[in-house]
Amino acid sequence: MSPKPNLPDSIQLAHGSGGLMTRELLDEIVFTTFKNPYLEQKHDGAIVPLTGPVVISTDSFVVSPIFFRGGDIGELAVNGTVNDVAMCGGIPRYLSLGFIIEEGLLTTDFLKIVESIKRAADAAGVQVVTGDTKVVESGKGDKIFINTTGIGSPHPNGQIAMERIAEGDQILVSGPIAAHGMAILSEREGLEFESEIQSDTTNLNHLVDDLLKAFGGAIHLFRDPTRGGVSGVCSEIAQDSGRGVLLRETDFPIHHQVAAACEILGLDPLYVANEGILCAVVDGAVAPEVLAFMQAHPKGSGSACIGSIVPDHPGKVVMESSIGGKRIVTPLIGEQLPRIC
Amino acid sequence: MSPKPNLPDSIQLAHGSGGLMTRELLDEIVFTTFKNPYLEQKHDGAIVPLTGPVVISTDSFVVSPIFFRGGDIGELAVNGTVNDVAMCGGIPRYLSLGFIIEEGLLTTDFLKIVESIKRAADAAGVQVVTGDTKVVESGKGDKIFINTTGIGSPHPNGQIAMERIAEGDQILVSGPIAAHGMAILSEREGLEFESEIQSDTTNLNHLVDDLLKAFGGAIHLFRDPTRGGVSGVCSEIAQDSGRGVLLRETDFPIHHQVAAACEILGLDPLYVANEGILCAVVDGAVAPEVLAFMQAHPKGSGSACIGSIVPDHPGKVVMESSIGGKRIVTPLIGEQLPRIC
Repeated sequence: MSPKPNLPDSIQLAHGSGGLMTRELLDEIVFTTFKNPYLEQKHDGAIVPLTGPVVISTDSFVVSPIFFRGGDIGELAVNGTVNDVAMCGGIPRYLSLGFIIEEGLLTTDFLKIVESIKRAADAAGVQVVTGDTKVVESGKGDKIFINTTGIGSPHPNGQIAMERIAEGDQILVSGPIAAHGMAILSEREGLEFESEIQSDTTNLNHLVDDLLKAFGGAIHLFRDPTRGGVSGVCSEIAQDSGRGVLLRETDFPIHHQVAAACEILGLDPLYVANEGILCAVVDGAVAPEVLAFMQAHPKGSGSACIGSIVPDHPGKVVMESSIGGKRIVTPLIGEQLPRIC
Repeated sequence: MSPKPNLPDSIQLAHGSGGLMTRELLDEIVFTTFKNPYLEQKHDGAIVPLTGPVVISTDSFVVSPIFFRGGDIGELAVNGTVNDVAMCGGIPRYLSLGFIIEEGLLTTDFLKIVESIKRAADAAGVQVVTGDTKVVESGKGDKIFINTTGIGSPHPNGQIAMERIAEGDQILVSGPIAAHGMAILSEREGLEFESEIQSDTTNLNHLVDDLLKAFGGAIHLFRDPTRGGVSGVCSEIAQDSGRGVLLRETDFPIHHQVAAACEILGLDPLYVANEGILCAVVDGAVAPEVLAFMQAHPKGSGSACIGSIVPDHPGKVVMESSIGGKRIVTPLIGEQLPRIC
């Protein structure tokens, strides 16, 4: 990939000024890549044929480094917001895209990121319909920050609500934990492990769609365990539902090299960020069937049942350890790994 | 205003980690300020009762300084996006809100900004329904960047489209030009003028709504002349419609101290950013009536007719100067004032 003929080698302050250079950057890279009738309205926004009600979710991405094993900030920015819309029981359809670029970002890097956004949007089945580009002086940003806001429609079969969680519900995860956080950390610290640890970043909206089509109201909650990890999600479930969560340490799926890296670095994988798995809280009666469905799905082959909703210790998460003991799992208080997404 | 008891004096990296400290920041400041049933869904997003089709627009705000005469980054972030939705002929209803905070931002400053967002949202009649907070290390950002994405419905009387612009249309502006850019610049450079120059930041959605109710299809286009100024908007109109734009220098409304400041600094007010006025391209037959309506409106008392769509010089903007000469107006190429919004 090489910069387009009209563009300099790196992004300059003037590319964010709203003048001809902004327009050139947009025309040469952004509009060309995302070409669709909504962008071509060339309004200050877009008018899209969504019927209400509308699901909306937003996320800014500040991950460092911007390229990492298994993905980059562009792919992450699409998958992260697509997944948040899906976790509300929504079918994501359209994205807005806001860039805050630090002056000096290589134009080739920007192009790679835009192309990565396009691939991820295509894979998720969403369209980028409106956007914004700002440029800040060198030293006032960090290469590139990306905001995406996703809109979509509620799934007709979705009944996702914290209040629906009940005793006997099972907690499923759709794949091995802690891969994203450990990929970023090993990249950042220049750590070399036996085999490369890859971020798990991927879209989960098709998995959610298929699960809701198959099981509808039997699924009480979806959450993606990003910042704060699985422990963060389980703590939220316990606190917000007022119910007890019992987890079984031995049942957590984790790649052995991720587990080894966590051990070397003294990190608990339960607190490490994921970007391509979901937690589902499902009716206990159909949980085995849901688990089998997930394991047979391309986005859920590593699925496992990791715990359940119990009558004991309401509002708290308790972990049964591999040697039979029990401990309370507290949510992350401060910072484990900054700028993980 | 003082920081809430549970919060430290400044924002720390840990406030963006997704752990307990993030939750405290959100609970103490954000959820308390914006309290509404959509935020209380506590999903990864919100489900809002909008009927389709949907108008969507996004903008990131990186203005420096974050507090300036006549406004602050929070108010700007609401008005900017509300106005972009309105310029598409939309009625803005809901906002998403994404913060990228530099570690060390004073908690009192954050609180002031959040309260300013709330006031601006109330004034515009929109609700903040979902959000995201990230924190980056000191030196990797600049105090605070804000992304807002607005969604709403198309106005039932709106027929806003570049293709509807026709020969004989008149170009109206809703108030004096160049105030926002000169307010930021004088703040940034520590310039003192005879009287303080204030940013014009305000919402324009009520003005748009009232204009569309009164004149409907006679209004062919709305644009707000932000980055790139009035010349940027007129250049876009000429290029995208393929028609000639004739402007009359003597008819431009401008506060005399803004004009004086532009002259001292060698800036052409035509290129300076505005954040509280709109350009409307309207059917020539009703233009006088539209202008009188705007002048009688609280958001348009300084309105003026500044030019028209002409058969000559298609695709180009020409300015008739105060001494009778004519010159071609080119759009801004690079950077006039960085980080103006």
